[in-house]
Amino acid sequence: MKLSTETNRKTSEALCLLSEDTCRGRVGEIRAAMDRAGVSAILVTDNANKYFLTGRVFTGQIYIPLKGEVIYFVRRPLKLTGDGVVYVRKPEEISLTIGLNMPGVIGLELDITAYSTVERLRKIFPEAEMKNISPMLREVRAVKDKEAHDLLKLSGEKQVYVYSRIPRLYKEGMSDIELQIEIERVSRLQGCLGQFRISGDSMELYMGNVLAGDNADTPSPYDFAMGGAGIDPSLPVGADGTILKPGMTVMVDMNGDYTGYMTDMTRVYCVGQVESLHPLLRKAHDCSIRIHRELVDMLRPGTEAKELWRKAEEIAAAEGLHDYFMGHRQNAGFLGSSVGIEINELRVIAPRSRDIIKEGNVVALEPKFVIPGHGAVGIESTYFVHADGVENLTPAPEEIIPFE
Amino acid sequence: MKLSTETNRKTSEALCLLSEDTCRGRVGEIRAAMDRAGVSAILVTDNANKYFLTGRVFTGQIYIPLKGEVIYFVRRPLKLTGDGVVYVRKPEEISLTIGLNMPGVIGLELDITAYSTVERLRKIFPEAEMKNISPMLREVRAVKDKEAHDLLKLSGEKQVYVYSRIPRLYKEGMSDIELQIEIERVSRLQGCLGQFRISGDSMELYMGNVLAGDNADTPSPYDFAMGGAGIDPSLPVGADGTILKPGMTVMVDMNGDYTGYMTDMTRVYCVGQVESLHPLLRKAHDCSIRIHRELVDMLRPGTEAKELWRKAEEIAAAEGLHDYFMGHRQNAGFLGSSVGIEINELRVIAPRSRDIIKEGNVVALEPKFVIPGHGAVGIESTYFVHADGVENLTPAPEEIIPFE
Repeated sequence: MKLSTETNRKTSEALCLLSEDTCRGRVGEIRAAMDRAGVSAILVTDNANKYFLTGRVFTGQIYIPLKGEVIYFVRRPLKLTGDGVVYVRKPEEISLTIGLNMPGVIGLELDITAYSTVERLRKIFPEAEMKNISPMLREVRAVKDKEAHDLLKLSGEKQVYVYSRIPRLYKEGMSDIELQIEIERVSRLQGCLGQFRISGDSMELYMGNVLAGDNADTPSPYDFAMGGAGIDPSLPVGADGTILKPGMTVMVDMNGDYTGYMTDMTRVYCVGQVESLHPLLRKAHDCSIRIHRELVDMLRPGTEAKELWRKAEEIAAAEGLHDYFMGHRQNAGFLGSSVGIEINELRVIAPRSRDIIKEGNVVALEPKFVIPGHGAVGIESTYFVHADGVENLTPAPEEIIPFE
Repeated sequence: MKLSTETNRKTSEALCLLSEDTCRGRVGEIRAAMDRAGVSAILVTDNANKYFLTGRVFTGQIYIPLKGEVIYFVRRPLKLTGDGVVYVRKPEEISLTIGLNMPGVIGLELDITAYSTVERLRKIFPEAEMKNISPMLREVRAVKDKEAHDLLKLSGEKQVYVYSRIPRLYKEGMSDIELQIEIERVSRLQGCLGQFRISGDSMELYMGNVLAGDNADTPSPYDFAMGGAGIDPSLPVGADGTILKPGMTVMVDMNGDYTGYMTDMTRVYCVGQVESLHPLLRKAHDCSIRIHRELVDMLRPGTEAKELWRKAEEIAAAEGLHDYFMGHRQNAGFLGSSVGIEINELRVIAPRSRDIIKEGNVVALEPKFVIPGHGAVGIESTYFVHADGVENLTPAPEEIIPFE
């Protein structure tokens, strides 16, 4: 028995999905950084960095010499074509292509690549000195170009639409996790990819965080701004089955990855009337909105990240809210970070951060408060720093929103 | 304004959630392996391994000397207590606790820990020789004890229940991704944690894979058994928006992590009557079921993994299905693997595998076929290898199931 109908799928496809300008610009920024750092070539293996350089994910490595052609060593998928595409079955075959043009200093992503993998890759360049290019690549990726901006903007628009649907997803007697599942469904139907790319391997999260009432005060093992017990000790974060009741706030901080570039957004909801919430919840929420206003005014190229933290802490303290700022029993060490391909990109808004805000940076600010016994309040929005001002990528009502 | 209502959450909690027997057994197996390998102490940082050793995830490290007390170095969450629990703010503080009892040979998880992290951790033990314990820990984890078995069994029961609900989730005109989203929702409502723990960082996946019709023949960059284009080049795997139509099969391979230990299960559905499917689809599906029968008979302590592959390939070839076995345009290099805390645990059922099946192993077998132009067929079930026979953890109807 032989098959007559053959597949109508494309059997070949250009490897690089970025525009020529974008691709050239990104490689150019990396080469400028390599030049400054004295690196003669880099070998990129991380999916987030490969996506940055090609607009797609594949199994393989990207070799960028300071001068000469970029080479894309691909193992899978078996269909990619284009200048510089070379298929290899294993990384050791890379040396056949590079031949005698061996770099003197090879850059590898040491902050994210496993030790054994690094040991294997460095053998391709036996004579070369090895340097860590993780910080360099994070720095280059921190400045977003037009193509990144447009994908971020699209993610923000979709995330804002999904959040606008949240009030009508609530049903009386629902638990936090049940509400989260309905939000997940609406997010996915709008094209949310679900995946959280996170740099480093210490953090784990599934589709975001819905924190209701007192669960917000449960410390989590992860370095997220808020905690929650979760529903299983193998993934102890977020919603824990708390039944939603009048008087508690419900903080929603869900996945904003609709395009490969994600925005980050938090809004707070409540069962019943906002007026019946504990006054401290309302006061702290208003304070978060005020912190956003003040910090957006400061968010200009040249601003020190630590100054943003200092200002936020000062405002919280002036309102007598210091004990609840960024957590109660366990505090988050940062007020926000950059987002993009990963949820934790460079700039970190923290007390001892040395980061300086630049044009093209994207900053998700999340001044939040945990009021023990009642819940978490505060909003998160994602801002794009232009030369002449700040663009809110997640514009949406900021007050506490009652469920319908 | 001060707050009167204080939190009613637990402020302390035992670190180890395993039974004493289980905990002692697992540490004992690791120490026996350390002894054989000449390792004097190990420092465990990976979340999957920490979960194996404590039944929970936390930020920090576990220090296991060949003799003496196990020490749990915790950074977060701020509430854990128990014998050997020591709070540290950074790994460098570990040396204060270990003091003069420095190991001669320190074992670290080199296959999964980032190069920079390893360089940092090894400085805690400046005089020690370093050895890679990743393979050793994977081998210990490959043999499941009673507590692991029971969690796997529970995951399997929930996954089987969710799959029984799939036929009624279908609606005419639906796309593959829309169906997947409804399956995700039902899975989550049954307690699915969503997270896929995967050893290594090359694979990415969100909640599993629904492959309809010709999309099954699209090569993916990841080393999964099946492909699919996905809905975005940043996560190019799985459902791609194909509208479900009569004549195509819909393969469902969704997340089975309901307890921290996951099962893996695939079933195939179709729109309209099974009889109207291309005969090759039905023939290949029957062949997959037959391969399961034959392989389950072979799945005994002592069986070589590569023999399982050989047998499956032989059966497929005898039926003239070799061109479609484990993919068409791009083939998977394995027929199955162990599952547990991670989706890709040790035993790999592959042509050149050196693995030997042992009592307590869990093997997910997935002999699958891609029929170009029509779709993917074949089932996956997860089996527990007991001394005296095989237990199917995902027992459910195996034939192609028509949507209602």
